[in-house]
Amino acid sequence: MIHSGELIQLVSPKGKRYLRVFDPDQELHTHDGKLILREICELNYGDCITSHLGKSYTILKPSLYDLLKNIKRKTQVIYPKDIGYILLKLSIGPGATVIEAGCGSGALTMALAWFVGQEGRVHSFERRPEFQALCADNLARVKLLERVVFHVRDIEDGFAVGEADAVFIDVRTPWEYLDQILDGIKNGHPVGFLLPTMNQVSLLLAGLEQKPFAELEVLEIFLRKYKPVPERLRPEDRMVAHTGYLVFARARKERRRVPVAV
Amino acid sequence: MIHSGELIQLVSPKGKRYLRVFDPDQELHTHDGKLILREICELNYGDCITSHLGKSYTILKPSLYDLLKNIKRKTQVIYPKDIGYILLKLSIGPGATVIEAGCGSGALTMALAWFVGQEGRVHSFERRPEFQALCADNLARVKLLERVVFHVRDIEDGFAVGEADAVFIDVRTPWEYLDQILDGIKNGHPVGFLLPTMNQVSLLLAGLEQKPFAELEVLEIFLRKYKPVPERLRPEDRMVAHTGYLVFARARKERRRVPVAV
Amino acid sequence: MIHSGELIQLVSPKGKRYLRVFDPDQELHTHDGKLILREICELNYGDCITSHLGKSYTILKPSLYDLLKNIKRKTQVIYPKDIGYILLKLSIGPGATVIEAGCGSGALTMALAWFVGQEGRVHSFERRPEFQALCADNLARVKLLERVVFHVRDIEDGFAVGEADAVFIDVRTPWEYLDQILDGIKNGHPVGFLLPTMNQVSLLLAGLEQKPFAELEVLEIFLRKYKPVPERLRPEDRMVAHTGYLVFARARKERRRVPVAV
Amino acid sequence: MIHSGELIQLVSPKGKRYLRVFDPDQELHTHDGKLILREICELNYGDCITSHLGKSYTILKPSLYDLLKNIKRKTQVIYPKDIGYILLKLSIGPGATVIEAGCGSGALTMALAWFVGQEGRVHSFERRPEFQALCADNLARVKLLERVVFHVRDIEDGFAVGEADAVFIDVRTPWEYLDQILDGIKNGHPVGFLLPTMNQVSLLLAGLEQKPFAELEVLEIFLRKYKPVPERLRPEDRMVAHTGYLVFARARKERRRVPVAV
Repeated sequence: MIHSGELIQLVSPKGKRYLRVFDPDQELHTHDGKLILREICELNYGDCITSHLGKSYTILKPSLYDLLKNIKRKTQVIYPKDIGYILLKLSIGPGATVIEAGCGSGALTMALAWFVGQEGRVHSFERRPEFQALCADNLARVKLLERVVFHVRDIEDGFAVGEADAVFIDVRTPWEYLDQILDGIKNGHPVGFLLPTMNQVSLLLAGLEQKPFAELEVLEIFLRKYKPVPERLRPEDRMVAHTGYLVFARARKERRRVPVAV
Repeated sequence: MIHSGELIQLVSPKGKRYLRVFDPDQELHTHDGKLILREICELNYGDCITSHLGKSYTILKPSLYDLLKNIKRKTQVIYPKDIGYILLKLSIGPGATVIEAGCGSGALTMALAWFVGQEGRVHSFERRPEFQALCADNLARVKLLERVVFHVRDIEDGFAVGEADAVFIDVRTPWEYLDQILDGIKNGHPVGFLLPTMNQVSLLLAGLEQKPFAELEVLEIFLRKYKPVPERLRPEDRMVAHTGYLVFARARKERRRVPVAV
Repeated sequence: MIHSGELIQLVSPKGKRYLRVFDPDQELHTHDGKLILREICELNYGDCITSHLGKSYTILKPSLYDLLKNIKRKTQVIYPKDIGYILLKLSIGPGATVIEAGCGSGALTMALAWFVGQEGRVHSFERRPEFQALCADNLARVKLLERVVFHVRDIEDGFAVGEADAVFIDVRTPWEYLDQILDGIKNGHPVGFLLPTMNQVSLLLAGLEQKPFAELEVLEIFLRKYKPVPERLRPEDRMVAHTGYLVFARARKERRRVPVAV
Repeated sequence: MIHSGELIQLVSPKGKRYLRVFDPDQELHTHDGKLILREICELNYGDCITSHLGKSYTILKPSLYDLLKNIKRKTQVIYPKDIGYILLKLSIGPGATVIEAGCGSGALTMALAWFVGQEGRVHSFERRPEFQALCADNLARVKLLERVVFHVRDIEDGFAVGEADAVFIDVRTPWEYLDQILDGIKNGHPVGFLLPTMNQVSLLLAGLEQKPFAELEVLEIFLRKYKPVPERLRPEDRMVAHTGYLVFARARKERRRVPVAV
């Protein structure tokens, strides 16, 4: 049974997708005719409903990947290939508190909100109100808004939300905010950055070297898709060649030492 | 404050790492001398303790990435670059129930257990008792064992644990178990596979095409690391060229249709 | 001085390129107006001529790379990244005799003709007359036609041109012609293949293993371009993900042994 | 028939290779016993000779690729994947005159000498006499020395060998020699550079932008090998992740314009 208020995805015969919070009182008007959503109440995921023109729409439970692809974007978004790795490196899990700066359209915000769960919290900092609004809208559409606290302000003034378990920074000049990052993160915890150019990576590394950060890592991730044809297996003709360089480090802000053991 | 029973990581001056469940009554004997762990009680993550030979060890909270690197392995393990993407595609999050077949040394099992949280559940199937034992040991060491139910049996007999939110299969001939997978997963939900050779991918795709699966995807992920030197930024000389091909699909096992709307 | 009959390339202010065999009696009609080519007689490469509308066109000597990009194509052409490596592996150099089967639009034919020089020879086999004609046309336009002998026939009947220094095969089912290849190549010499799918690679390898071929190699080559902006250095957004798999082997057709030395 | 003075390659049963200029009066002492090379006079490539211990050695004609792999090196050498592309972009062919600066161990020098043929000429500049000697030695061993003119001097003083058809620069700070390069190359002709770090690429691009160079290109080439097993086709586990960035440009040193046509 699919209940009112659940996230559903309706897939047309031609593969067009409609992501909705299920409301049995609504209708969906498509090129294939009208869908009476109330019928969904008696169905399960994977079942189909039929439009008044006789076209069959499949009801799917959207995966996080579906949600990410469905984001309304005004900016370049962070790609799933990068998000997955960021989650591991930043150790995002149920109950974590994460600071994110530069939310953009909210792709990473959404993934972070998904994985911190109901006990976790994402503090999202964004200077530009229109991006904050877009990000909030994208999260509301997938019912994850309550896990995010938005802060529309310049991170130059610090985060002021206590020490987080992890910090992710997607702004143009991250090397200018390293002190604020150190203030905002628990000691020994991981920080991540996304940067499009090598010049920025170089400047960030130089900055990190002069502050108490350790375990610096720079990397990039490629994803190559194949045409799923068993008797003619081959990669797709083209692929994304660059989204951004990922930089990771670990805060080592204090180095208190206890006296030598005897 | 660091409490007894927490996972900690001690890092030697030369970068050697010791992962432990913190027990204040223990000592750690290293090449740099003896560490009295009780001293940690008064410290925080990022602080250091000193061995009886005067060497300083940093105390870090291990990230999931650290835990994965620390796994005791008898098999090729799934790499973080692949795990991150699997999590997104399979939509693993707090509260999810996941079936995994072919647990190997337990790298993916650990990540799944991490992300499903305390309310979630991982059903791990493995035919070979020695691998099941190794996997369980690895999970116990990082205190995630309680989220996993181990099943030492051949998946040819089916999973018999109800319908899961997602299924991941890492066995040699996954095309032989497609009916069992369909039985074990909620309709419309995602299934993932990892396969080392193209021949296997081809056979799996041919199998998936003949059963009610949709949205077939085949891909591979590359990770390229850079030397983190700001004034001489360049990739490392060598990289991993292949771990495996990832295949994803969606179960579409029933296709019930309601009557045409009027 | 640029002489009549030389290959020249005229580059418009907007970067449009015109490749021509220089004929001083011709005019070139462009969107920027008419160019009187006779004026080129008094100029050198790198100089400009001006159209009757006052637009400046630069005269360049085309490189082989320019010629390859300028090919009229009806088929997928072999890319420069692959051609360069094929040349090395097949040891194409001045004076070499090469057999090529499946000339397509003639990109590789052109490169082979370029590198074998005036003393070398390319035997190009193509079953379909329209491709042979296109290939010949492309080679004539760059004045390399005389180095190529075209054979419009099925290679199932063998090559019948004596033993070549190297053989390159770009046909759909190369494993059907391994005996003909062995007949057509000098013993110990290299053979190359280009294949778009993994299934073909697998079938070819199985065939090569059953015949006297040695040193089997399978590989693929990627080329990633960067935006040439010094202060914002980063890769281009997209790249070619697949052209084809290259397979190389060495003929070992006879294994005559002289008596044991004493 | 194999003639005295030809380059031959002897391959042991275990795959060990011996590259030699064939001298019938010599013997080859191997772990498998003594080979009487005179016996080769009556054989062809692909045939075998037998050691006095009864081991069979195959005689192969070395390809350029074999020669490049056989180079005695004291430096990082340029890889075949890069060399092939350089040849195309620099349009190296029979009869060309090429300037090369920074010959290293001579891998590129050898390939250039191979492809320019007997009428062509490679001017190789190298400041350090020991590398010049190594490079000359490597070229002599494969009988290509006569096509190369060595200049042991700093390119800061210019090339002074007339205008070349193409220039390739493999030195640490190529941006310091752009005027010399412009002097040494025919107008409109291609120049290539190899650089290991992004910082160097950035500095070179900034330099090229301030001089009369056009058509700037930056790229990198990857080569991924597969295990040639038909029934278990998969890439090798590891690969070279970085050799260097290739930068190409075209000299546009003068911009003489003829009067407007009427």
